[in-house]
Amino acid sequence: MQVSFACTEHNLKSRSEDRLCGLRTAPPPGGGGGGSNQGGNGNYNTHGSAKPREQLGSRPVPQGHAHMKEAIGRHSSMKYRNLGKSGLRVSCLGLGYLSLSLSPQMAENLMTIAYEAGVNLFDTAEVYASGRSALYTILHCSLLRSSYVVTTKIYWGGQAETERGLSRKHIIEGLRGSLSRLQLDYVDMVFANRNDVNSPMEEIVRAMTFVINQGMAMYWGTSRWSPMEIMEAYSVARQFNLIPPVCEQAEYHYFKRDKVEVQLPELYHKIGVGAMTWSPLACGLITGKYNEGVPDISRANIKGYQWLKERVNSEEGRKQLAKIKELRLMADRLGCTSAQLAIAWCLRSEGVSSVLLGVSNTDQLMENLGALRLISQMTPQTVAEIDSLLGNKPHSKKESRA
Amino acid sequence: MQVSFACTEHNLKSRSEDRLCGLRTAPPPGGGGGGSNQGGNGNYNTHGSAKPREQLGSRPVPQGHAHMKEAIGRHSSMKYRNLGKSGLRVSCLGLGYLSLSLSPQMAENLMTIAYEAGVNLFDTAEVYASGRSALYTILHCSLLRSSYVVTTKIYWGGQAETERGLSRKHIIEGLRGSLSRLQLDYVDMVFANRNDVNSPMEEIVRAMTFVINQGMAMYWGTSRWSPMEIMEAYSVARQFNLIPPVCEQAEYHYFKRDKVEVQLPELYHKIGVGAMTWSPLACGLITGKYNEGVPDISRANIKGYQWLKERVNSEEGRKQLAKIKELRLMADRLGCTSAQLAIAWCLRSEGVSSVLLGVSNTDQLMENLGALRLISQMTPQTVAEIDSLLGNKPHSKKESRA
Amino acid sequence: MQVSFACTEHNLKSRSEDRLCGLRTAPPPGGGGGGSNQGGNGNYNTHGSAKPREQLGSRPVPQGHAHMKEAIGRHSSMKYRNLGKSGLRVSCLGLGYLSLSLSPQMAENLMTIAYEAGVNLFDTAEVYASGRSALYTILHCSLLRSSYVVTTKIYWGGQAETERGLSRKHIIEGLRGSLSRLQLDYVDMVFANRNDVNSPMEEIVRAMTFVINQGMAMYWGTSRWSPMEIMEAYSVARQFNLIPPVCEQAEYHYFKRDKVEVQLPELYHKIGVGAMTWSPLACGLITGKYNEGVPDISRANIKGYQWLKERVNSEEGRKQLAKIKELRLMADRLGCTSAQLAIAWCLRSEGVSSVLLGVSNTDQLMENLGALRLISQMTPQTVAEIDSLLGNKPHSKKESRA
Amino acid sequence: MQVSFACTEHNLKSRSEDRLCGLRTAPPPGGGGGGSNQGGNGNYNTHGSAKPREQLGSRPVPQGHAHMKEAIGRHSSMKYRNLGKSGLRVSCLGLGYLSLSLSPQMAENLMTIAYEAGVNLFDTAEVYASGRSALYTILHCSLLRSSYVVTTKIYWGGQAETERGLSRKHIIEGLRGSLSRLQLDYVDMVFANRNDVNSPMEEIVRAMTFVINQGMAMYWGTSRWSPMEIMEAYSVARQFNLIPPVCEQAEYHYFKRDKVEVQLPELYHKIGVGAMTWSPLACGLITGKYNEGVPDISRANIKGYQWLKERVNSEEGRKQLAKIKELRLMADRLGCTSAQLAIAWCLRSEGVSSVLLGVSNTDQLMENLGALRLISQMTPQTVAEIDSLLGNKPHSKKESRA
Repeated sequence: MQVSFACTEHNLKSRSEDRLCGLRTAPPPGGGGGGSNQGGNGNYNTHGSAKPREQLGSRPVPQGHAHMKEAIGRHSSMKYRNLGKSGLRVSCLGLGYLSLSLSPQMAENLMTIAYEAGVNLFDTAEVYASGRSALYTILHCSLLRSSYVVTTKIYWGGQAETERGLSRKHIIEGLRGSLSRLQLDYVDMVFANRNDVNSPMEEIVRAMTFVINQGMAMYWGTSRWSPMEIMEAYSVARQFNLIPPVCEQAEYHYFKRDKVEVQLPELYHKIGVGAMTWSPLACGLITGKYNEGVPDISRANIKGYQWLKERVNSEEGRKQLAKIKELRLMADRLGCTSAQLAIAWCLRSEGVSSVLLGVSNTDQLMENLGALRLISQMTPQTVAEIDSLLGNKPHSKKESRA
Repeated sequence: MQVSFACTEHNLKSRSEDRLCGLRTAPPPGGGGGGSNQGGNGNYNTHGSAKPREQLGSRPVPQGHAHMKEAIGRHSSMKYRNLGKSGLRVSCLGLGYLSLSLSPQMAENLMTIAYEAGVNLFDTAEVYASGRSALYTILHCSLLRSSYVVTTKIYWGGQAETERGLSRKHIIEGLRGSLSRLQLDYVDMVFANRNDVNSPMEEIVRAMTFVINQGMAMYWGTSRWSPMEIMEAYSVARQFNLIPPVCEQAEYHYFKRDKVEVQLPELYHKIGVGAMTWSPLACGLITGKYNEGVPDISRANIKGYQWLKERVNSEEGRKQLAKIKELRLMADRLGCTSAQLAIAWCLRSEGVSSVLLGVSNTDQLMENLGALRLISQMTPQTVAEIDSLLGNKPHSKKESRA
Repeated sequence: MQVSFACTEHNLKSRSEDRLCGLRTAPPPGGGGGGSNQGGNGNYNTHGSAKPREQLGSRPVPQGHAHMKEAIGRHSSMKYRNLGKSGLRVSCLGLGYLSLSLSPQMAENLMTIAYEAGVNLFDTAEVYASGRSALYTILHCSLLRSSYVVTTKIYWGGQAETERGLSRKHIIEGLRGSLSRLQLDYVDMVFANRNDVNSPMEEIVRAMTFVINQGMAMYWGTSRWSPMEIMEAYSVARQFNLIPPVCEQAEYHYFKRDKVEVQLPELYHKIGVGAMTWSPLACGLITGKYNEGVPDISRANIKGYQWLKERVNSEEGRKQLAKIKELRLMADRLGCTSAQLAIAWCLRSEGVSSVLLGVSNTDQLMENLGALRLISQMTPQTVAEIDSLLGNKPHSKKESRA
Repeated sequence: MQVSFACTEHNLKSRSEDRLCGLRTAPPPGGGGGGSNQGGNGNYNTHGSAKPREQLGSRPVPQGHAHMKEAIGRHSSMKYRNLGKSGLRVSCLGLGYLSLSLSPQMAENLMTIAYEAGVNLFDTAEVYASGRSALYTILHCSLLRSSYVVTTKIYWGGQAETERGLSRKHIIEGLRGSLSRLQLDYVDMVFANRNDVNSPMEEIVRAMTFVINQGMAMYWGTSRWSPMEIMEAYSVARQFNLIPPVCEQAEYHYFKRDKVEVQLPELYHKIGVGAMTWSPLACGLITGKYNEGVPDISRANIKGYQWLKERVNSEEGRKQLAKIKELRLMADRLGCTSAQLAIAWCLRSEGVSSVLLGVSNTDQLMENLGALRLISQMTPQTVAEIDSLLGNKPHSKKESRA
């Protein structure tokens, strides 16, 4: 990754003046970012493009993250894996969907830092708002299109009846809409979100093959599909000589393990479908954020996250919090944060091609990226210790046979 | 359907001025529509786009339609069905081909009302005149392309020998012509009208697959094909790994039942082909329009509709008129119009994905849309009563076996 | 064919001024056509576009063609046939390749007359010179593209080694060149001329399927291929699910019968490949042109036509000339010309979809078109009489079995 | 090859002024070429386009190439072969990758001379620098695109992880980048360089078929693949009805014979894959360049060519130098240079479609082209003599069976 890339305000302005792509983001009023701990980040943004990675390590450590010291690895520590058995190489950490509640400046900072750290996988969604999409425009003006991977997802989007489900019409129009908003000619991966049992599998696989043959996407994958549905897609692809999916996007963390650890590895071995996982921190639960209950300003209080509050307060929730506290102690022993340990733990799994990070500020991102340094410490002993602590290791089929 | 849409003159003008798509329809001289009962419609057209659906229910009831009171359902009463076993969701009532004898203003009003009522299915034909096509241009300037479904049909069109039949040349050129007239990049469904036994099925299915793979259409269907021909198309599609049809367009009403009630359901179960039906009122016969003979100003007197006059005056015709009178009494009991009963009766059929309405003024359209309210009243008893009254219930294959 | 079309100088000028397509042909110096018998033709060209067909019948009969009186049929006499078993409808008489020795004005006249007489099939070749191609530009500016059929041929064309044979490269580039010269987006039929045994059949059929799937052609056919080669193409198309050829272009006249009468009908019945035949007059031999030896100004004297002279002077040639004289007497009895009889005789064959006319002036064309009137007179008796006279009726496989 | 083509400075200037394609190369300061022996070449470049080939034979012989007299054959001596069993005809000598260390003027001269000598095959690579690509722009402005064959190669190119290997993404983006740099709409042949065992064969063959179906390439081939890998590609193509490769690019010279002489002929006979070979002079070793050790200014001293130096100095290297000296004597007897003998010897092999020449000045190129004259002298006796001298003739499978 020798491409030097820093989307500072100054940078963008001069790029605009060079008419590289005619885009310019409005400079923020005070020159700074969004929240109170943006000082360090603002600082980061004002350095030039020279040796940005060296500075990444030495930049002032934000307050309140005792474990973050030295947590940010060098760029060279990024690992790349093939997405499933496909030939596509993705960074083992990807940048997930950026919430619309983030300021554009913050979102841009996150993308810059991620890219500089070697992240080449950026996840988006069909209904990505224009404001957020503009960032991707910045991205593909700044970088060689061939140096990064963008994914998008077709799912329950519009208000019209025709914009739901996975009809050929919706898949094609949904992807076309995404491309238009992202100002891209194609995405590298398009995911079909399963929410419509009424679309025949042949129609879905034909539509996915169509968008690939039209050059609108390079690969396709599934999201939240059952292993049986993925097998059916594969089988239909083989029956009609269409293109099979290469990847399933699935939730994966300490408390949700079965699909990624038992079912997907079987699919990986049989048909090459890999796993791109999300929510490694279980919506923040694992960071210890809710250890003392759900604070008022967190998203657990926002309507729609009511379930999170309920979960935290349930008996199961209280048991999980206890385990999270123990894992925190373990992270301390390993010299890392809870989040880093959780992410590195996800990465240890054989079938996991990439873990999508869901972050809302630069500190979180940099902390998460520090998980790379932990991978080598995920020894069988450490993994066994965590398994024993969690007490929920699923039985793989192979083991149950023995 | 939260999209608020009202193509009033005022609306269109302002949209033009916003240069949304550069189109403008000439305002009609007197501001009104076409016929004598357009007052209510003109009224309708002057309301703004705010809460149009609330106004739909309370607008003045046109004279001469005693049964129409409260017949107009709320938007929310629209039902959506998958077209055959495809993933495409269409409203169970669609707007059929708009006659060229309608004024542009009237046609626009019809499309506006239909869309507001939740109709997302608009049927057109290969030889749609430019004037009428302009309306669709208005439609797709006003709406998200993904929120509605447009169909067109390839059939005996031009005067040249090459413009007839279903050769690859005619299918491709015919569809290209339709798209050009409709100013659309693609239609959602293209129908092949069967009038040429000289085109081999492989050529037809390859051409249909070609236009779909070129992005000129999303799906294809048949129109007036025999079940055996549809099976052959499906079989050829399977043989050569081409795309099979998803829908047959067929005539269906009280006096023409066999194909839609016996043959198409079998196809639906075997190969997923659904039915989109037309002429639910048997060219107006069912509304009681001709109960007292064929009046001079009706289309039954126009050359080309001579057959209708003959039919009305035949012995069979007289028997049908008697039944129509009884059905009128039944509609009275149910608190609806004859037309509404007839349309709701069509919708009760399992294999029917959508019923295309053939209307020539806004009152007819609003009356017809009122059939939605009747669907829940199509109980087994009511259906049995109608069957007994009609005396023409076809024997399904299953029944005949028993 | 209600399209009124007459490419008179006046016509073209006004069309140019209307900027229909920005083209204009230079008016010929003297206003007339090419040769000495162009008077009638010049006459023809000055009539307006009103009722041109009525004038076709009543125009002054050119000198020296005693048999031509009333030979020009009305437009309505044109017959249309499906090209092989495809759905494409072509006129049973097509206009063959127009020699480059013709003046542009003459070529234009020929196309105008042919089209007015109902001809919808125009044959071109890969290496059509720009001057001649311009005529097709006129054609497709004047007419609906869907109303006529243009064919072209890929064959030994350029000087470069890569421009020979039937490599994928040459097929695609050759067709692209043709389209560019013809200023068309696509041809209806592209023929592969067999002159390269070194291109594998799979490559040829894949390339033909490619140009069809790219929309550069509607159908493909073969030219001068052996029946076994055509069967191989069909078989390869079936093996790899590619598009099979629909037509073979073959020489066919009194003295060359086996392929079209025995071999191609078998192919037609088995795989639907039809015949488009050329040289119905055996390079003029049949018209009696060389009955008294080869005159100096005829093409038989030109280098390259030396073989024709040798043929005429051979023993076989002298026998053929004797037969031609007898056929002339027969034509007299039937009230037609030798050429008309010969063309009508070609049209009697079951597998013949269209006979391409090779003409060099308008009189020849009008005479040839008169053959349409003769078709109904090709009774079994007449055909048997001609067979007996020719003495070369090939044994069909069916007959030889019996 | 009647196309007269000479890219002299004067020529290009006038072509530019004719606005043939709006390109112009900056005239070199002194008007001359690059090195000290460019005089003859400069001379060559100043002749007009009239009869360039006659001048080729009579132009002053450069100093220091005693064997080169009369070594330059006439254009007519170029041989063309089908590339494998495909229909594509290529010159048996092709112009290989032009080193970036060459001046643009020199590179242009090389292309001009090669084309004039009948070479129609030009090899490029994915990462062709802009300066060099400009030459191809000149080429395709000067020539009919259909008269020459351009190849490119997808391989370990960019710095980003995604730009390595043979993922679908990299194949498509890599080829798109090549086309953009070459300013071509398509190449005739794209080679996949094997350096990534992690891309599944299905993905590679599907991607190659995709770029061919998109019109970005005419054919695809492999480079440095093992015979087993090529067989797997063919097998996958057959399994999924994709397009198989037609050619393998392989190193071939006196000291590296097994693959081209034993393994590839078997593939050629079984599946039609031909050989395009490179390095016929073993990086100059065979010319006797290093007979007296590696001089300081040669590339053997440059970092990266350290291996060459080591090889020359190894025991095996010293043996090879001894053989090279004997081959030099043999070349003297045949009246040709060592290089010409070596190239003609490569061309004798059955499966070799074309030998790519790696040259760095015009004298070398003209000397190499002289090998054409030698082909007829590669009699069984001569070949046997060389085999005996080399002592490394591989046993073909057929022979070992006998």
